[in-house]
Amino acid sequence: MTSPTDPRHVRGFASDNHAGVHPEILAAITAANGGHQPAYGDDRETARLREVMRRHFGEQAETYPVFNGTGANVVGLQAMSDPWSAVLCSATSHIHVDECGAAEKVAGLKLIPVPTADGKLTPELVDRYAWGWGDPHHAQPKVVSITQSSEMGTVYTPEEVAALAACAHERGMLLHMDGARVSNAAAALDVPLRAFTTDAGLDVLSYGGTKNGLMVGEAVVVLDPGAVRGMEFLRKMGMQLASKMRFLSAQLVALLDGDLWLRNATHANAMAQHLASAVRAVPGVRITQPVQANAVFAIIPPDVAARLRERYAFSTWDERAGEVRWMCAFDTTEDDIAGFAKALAEEMSA
Amino acid sequence: MTSPTDPRHVRGFASDNHAGVHPEILAAITAANGGHQPAYGDDRETARLREVMRRHFGEQAETYPVFNGTGANVVGLQAMSDPWSAVLCSATSHIHVDECGAAEKVAGLKLIPVPTADGKLTPELVDRYAWGWGDPHHAQPKVVSITQSSEMGTVYTPEEVAALAACAHERGMLLHMDGARVSNAAAALDVPLRAFTTDAGLDVLSYGGTKNGLMVGEAVVVLDPGAVRGMEFLRKMGMQLASKMRFLSAQLVALLDGDLWLRNATHANAMAQHLASAVRAVPGVRITQPVQANAVFAIIPPDVAARLRERYAFSTWDERAGEVRWMCAFDTTEDDIAGFAKALAEEMSA
Amino acid sequence: MTSPTDPRHVRGFASDNHAGVHPEILAAITAANGGHQPAYGDDRETARLREVMRRHFGEQAETYPVFNGTGANVVGLQAMSDPWSAVLCSATSHIHVDECGAAEKVAGLKLIPVPTADGKLTPELVDRYAWGWGDPHHAQPKVVSITQSSEMGTVYTPEEVAALAACAHERGMLLHMDGARVSNAAAALDVPLRAFTTDAGLDVLSYGGTKNGLMVGEAVVVLDPGAVRGMEFLRKMGMQLASKMRFLSAQLVALLDGDLWLRNATHANAMAQHLASAVRAVPGVRITQPVQANAVFAIIPPDVAARLRERYAFSTWDERAGEVRWMCAFDTTEDDIAGFAKALAEEMSA
Amino acid sequence: MTSPTDPRHVRGFASDNHAGVHPEILAAITAANGGHQPAYGDDRETARLREVMRRHFGEQAETYPVFNGTGANVVGLQAMSDPWSAVLCSATSHIHVDECGAAEKVAGLKLIPVPTADGKLTPELVDRYAWGWGDPHHAQPKVVSITQSSEMGTVYTPEEVAALAACAHERGMLLHMDGARVSNAAAALDVPLRAFTTDAGLDVLSYGGTKNGLMVGEAVVVLDPGAVRGMEFLRKMGMQLASKMRFLSAQLVALLDGDLWLRNATHANAMAQHLASAVRAVPGVRITQPVQANAVFAIIPPDVAARLRERYAFSTWDERAGEVRWMCAFDTTEDDIAGFAKALAEEMSA
Repeated sequence: MTSPTDPRHVRGFASDNHAGVHPEILAAITAANGGHQPAYGDDRETARLREVMRRHFGEQAETYPVFNGTGANVVGLQAMSDPWSAVLCSATSHIHVDECGAAEKVAGLKLIPVPTADGKLTPELVDRYAWGWGDPHHAQPKVVSITQSSEMGTVYTPEEVAALAACAHERGMLLHMDGARVSNAAAALDVPLRAFTTDAGLDVLSYGGTKNGLMVGEAVVVLDPGAVRGMEFLRKMGMQLASKMRFLSAQLVALLDGDLWLRNATHANAMAQHLASAVRAVPGVRITQPVQANAVFAIIPPDVAARLRERYAFSTWDERAGEVRWMCAFDTTEDDIAGFAKALAEEMSA
Repeated sequence: MTSPTDPRHVRGFASDNHAGVHPEILAAITAANGGHQPAYGDDRETARLREVMRRHFGEQAETYPVFNGTGANVVGLQAMSDPWSAVLCSATSHIHVDECGAAEKVAGLKLIPVPTADGKLTPELVDRYAWGWGDPHHAQPKVVSITQSSEMGTVYTPEEVAALAACAHERGMLLHMDGARVSNAAAALDVPLRAFTTDAGLDVLSYGGTKNGLMVGEAVVVLDPGAVRGMEFLRKMGMQLASKMRFLSAQLVALLDGDLWLRNATHANAMAQHLASAVRAVPGVRITQPVQANAVFAIIPPDVAARLRERYAFSTWDERAGEVRWMCAFDTTEDDIAGFAKALAEEMSA
Repeated sequence: MTSPTDPRHVRGFASDNHAGVHPEILAAITAANGGHQPAYGDDRETARLREVMRRHFGEQAETYPVFNGTGANVVGLQAMSDPWSAVLCSATSHIHVDECGAAEKVAGLKLIPVPTADGKLTPELVDRYAWGWGDPHHAQPKVVSITQSSEMGTVYTPEEVAALAACAHERGMLLHMDGARVSNAAAALDVPLRAFTTDAGLDVLSYGGTKNGLMVGEAVVVLDPGAVRGMEFLRKMGMQLASKMRFLSAQLVALLDGDLWLRNATHANAMAQHLASAVRAVPGVRITQPVQANAVFAIIPPDVAARLRERYAFSTWDERAGEVRWMCAFDTTEDDIAGFAKALAEEMSA
Repeated sequence: MTSPTDPRHVRGFASDNHAGVHPEILAAITAANGGHQPAYGDDRETARLREVMRRHFGEQAETYPVFNGTGANVVGLQAMSDPWSAVLCSATSHIHVDECGAAEKVAGLKLIPVPTADGKLTPELVDRYAWGWGDPHHAQPKVVSITQSSEMGTVYTPEEVAALAACAHERGMLLHMDGARVSNAAAALDVPLRAFTTDAGLDVLSYGGTKNGLMVGEAVVVLDPGAVRGMEFLRKMGMQLASKMRFLSAQLVALLDGDLWLRNATHANAMAQHLASAVRAVPGVRITQPVQANAVFAIIPPDVAARLRERYAFSTWDERAGEVRWMCAFDTTEDDIAGFAKALAEEMSA
């Protein structure tokens, strides 16, 4: 159907979810098969996952596998909120920009999007945008939601997360983290996952597996059980309760029981550094954000972008500015980068 | 963790989703791996699925893979509805009883549940419960939703579906089918899937794969594209858009391209007939519904049910009446049935 | 525009909200005018209303004026519920049949409508339809909602309400009353309002003023403050917070401070008895429900109904059965009844 | 209860809804009383209102009375939207800041708030913030919502509205106006209401009556019937359908049939100019927004604000900046202003 050079099927940098499934994950799915087990989470793999997650996030952690990142975010945020609550988030956050309004439309959450330079919230921004408690005219700020690593490829340090958690808690609010690429952040920071989650005072984490090598599967990890209400019900009514849950849990166990999560993320980050070096070497390409995790943002001329797109798929980030985004995945190779950098150089000089 | 006789892990009749994944499905997942492909459906397997589904349901059919049955039902029903619409369904329907109110809470649908004897709606019931068009005080009846095979294990004939479709269309309404076990219905009727769907005038089908041997994956199959609006958006905001969709589509292709869907369903149905015979032979057991697909409903004394549950997991259907439900799956064996019937006989005579 | 005999403007029995405003209410509106007062409830009349309502309903009662009955029901029910809750109600209840799905669509409530003979729930019905606590697949029954007097014109005795409250509370549920015609019930029972509300264990009341002589205005009366959360916020987000609230409160004070509420209701009920006698005397008219409050339900031949409608407006209740509804209001006169009974007799014998 | 100097009851500048009801409006309510008329809008006053509104807004205009401004905004915006739509609005807009999230929570609308200097959107801002059509990950921009006069007291010229309407329509979007103070805008511009509504290409207007002298009542005025779907149903399910609607309509007729709407607004605007002059004369007071309608924004020292609040109620606008808001109403007097300016001067020099 598609030609061998159809850019849709060329190994490239469009997104870390264009990659497939890591072989160790596939093996775990196969191993979980056979026999009957209860549906909806009362199975051995899900029990095992609970223990694995507690090793990472502490003994109080409760883990709820879900299907995708939007599901994790919406279910987690709704469990932290009252029907009259508001959620502060970056104006570039996935929940505001890229989830078709699921937060508002499915869960009735009100978002207060905050303009930022680099995709990261700060206590100062929270202080400025969260107000009006007790005023029935104003949806009540209840949750601060941050993304780690952010949609701009930047990373919060453990200290930055801790400062936001303290800021939120002082105001009676809670801290949520969209961790679609949380493993990349841990790899970038070279700290355990808990350093900037549990230990920093985070309340609820959307743990991202799919972009780090799973076939399908994310999890809401509740770090403070007192921060949520109704998780089991909200997951079901949010259409995120898998019947054959053992196959989601088995993937997450395979990722997190050993160091696969870290190997995959470390590799993707290293490839992004490599890619950044390679494209920086091309005259006329300007990298626009610090390359801290597995994303590279750059500005290239529109005509170059258009021609390059005939060879490789990738995302426009800011059409007006000519800013594009290139993502590295667990399976990105040096050859992939060499080929892409060559193509970019060719088109830049065309 | 669990003992070998923990009823949760004994092969039994609790639900057809306690079974695992059919080996041909696992093989298809593995085959779909490798390389990069666009996320969110612009991949080869999803393109292939479209063609496979059109062979079953006609050239106009549009297929939207989703994660689970609740997701398929809610997204499909919302696409058929206006914000002020109501949906008629059986009072025993999964969407009314078993989805934690997702239809109402996530999609703002209003359900009008209709009491039935056997889980099946009729044109007479639609005529009685659907009224009030044009009256702004009354949510406007827009969709009739039926379940095939029904939650009571009964099956609509093609003629019955056609009569309901005609009845709905005459009133400006649409017909939706929750097909969590649609393959079992086709096998029971010994007709092609399209006989009681496309050819009977059905508008939208929730096609069920998980209960028929998939790991994860269902699909909204739009049989009349004029019957829906906004499917792509509603699937995303309904948190049912898989990023690595190729792995959902590959499973559905493996099920539906050949006859695996029919083999699995035929087997499960045959096992239910076998189970019905076996338990009917036990004195004191009364089967309460026609065994038409893969479910057996029966009344047994409460103390028997309690003791039997220590050996096998299964569902209570109507606690007051002492009615229980036993489901057969694609992998149910004659040995499974023999063992269960023996245990039932032992407990009945204890 | 309309002729003097346009049935839309003939004094009749279509609904108790076809009547206008009682003169004492108009006087109270006028008296509340003048000067500035804070908007949104921090005014003198609303403070006064709180005290007046506490005289009726006890010192713990909290009163929240709202615009209309649908608003009172939805805001009250949402305040009693969690996002995953369900509400049991009669299948003939206003919230299920006559509010365009506001409960589901605006507040995400799930209704479980229960068939009844006379519009009244019983503990036995609650016991049968409320189940599944703790099961995440099942919206959690949290509220029993009854209508007093019911949509069928029947009245719950204080003992019946108390039995329902006990039944609800035993199950961890709460009891809500749609009191659109609560004054008519009190008048019919000849007991104070609190006899079948506060004293019977009711948790939240939608107090109805409009059908009893107000221009506009109802109130959510919270009898057990521990039964609700977020009332102030829910009223505002439910678009029920009046800016010039003093004018709603002044009406309610005028109704409830003295005995106007009881005079109006007693009159309407007496007129309904009178009407029932008058139409019972017409051969061929069959009254179908006990006439306990201000409604008369009757079966008349369809052609009679059609001709009578050219002279008087009134509601069809059950088209199939030929059942119609005639309501009396605070301003119904004996002449109104005589005229209507004469017209009915003429059309019956035509 | 409250002392004569309780600032809550002192005539002041807290909001234009602290004023009462204009006597001509009260008279109209009284005149509408008496006799029976159909509920829910099939009455003479509502028919009359339709004609009156068509004189102002053109023959195609459809008028739907509702209870309050939040109701008008939410019902109107929902009627213009699909379930997957987004609404652009100013970050200071009432719908984003002051309606407790009703748009999101009640109607599932997604708001895209846009930072502005003066509360006014421009085509350039729309161009920058509205994008992503056809992308299922992105809620689809469908409506631009502006406020006239704006929450900052600024006014759009007819040309500015026309440019926004053209900009919206070019993109397949619609233009909505929150007209809580639309009469003040018309008075300020000295043009008919239709100059910056119908004639400028506006699609739907929330017409505000309460802040201009009504007791209770606003209206959704649909200027382009092709721009909305389901208005009648959405009004009812949005809990905005008044049963005794004649009393809302009679108020609106009294306001709009003659020139009362303009007299009231012109007076309030003139008082705001007068107030601005008076407070500008007080050393240390800085007016922060152009005074174009009936609002004055100013910065005063926090301690002055605190002391002045013990004498007069008024709103803080930006606590951080020390910015406060003073509103004039239809009944503001020169004496009110003199008293307030004197008090301000006293506290500034204290």
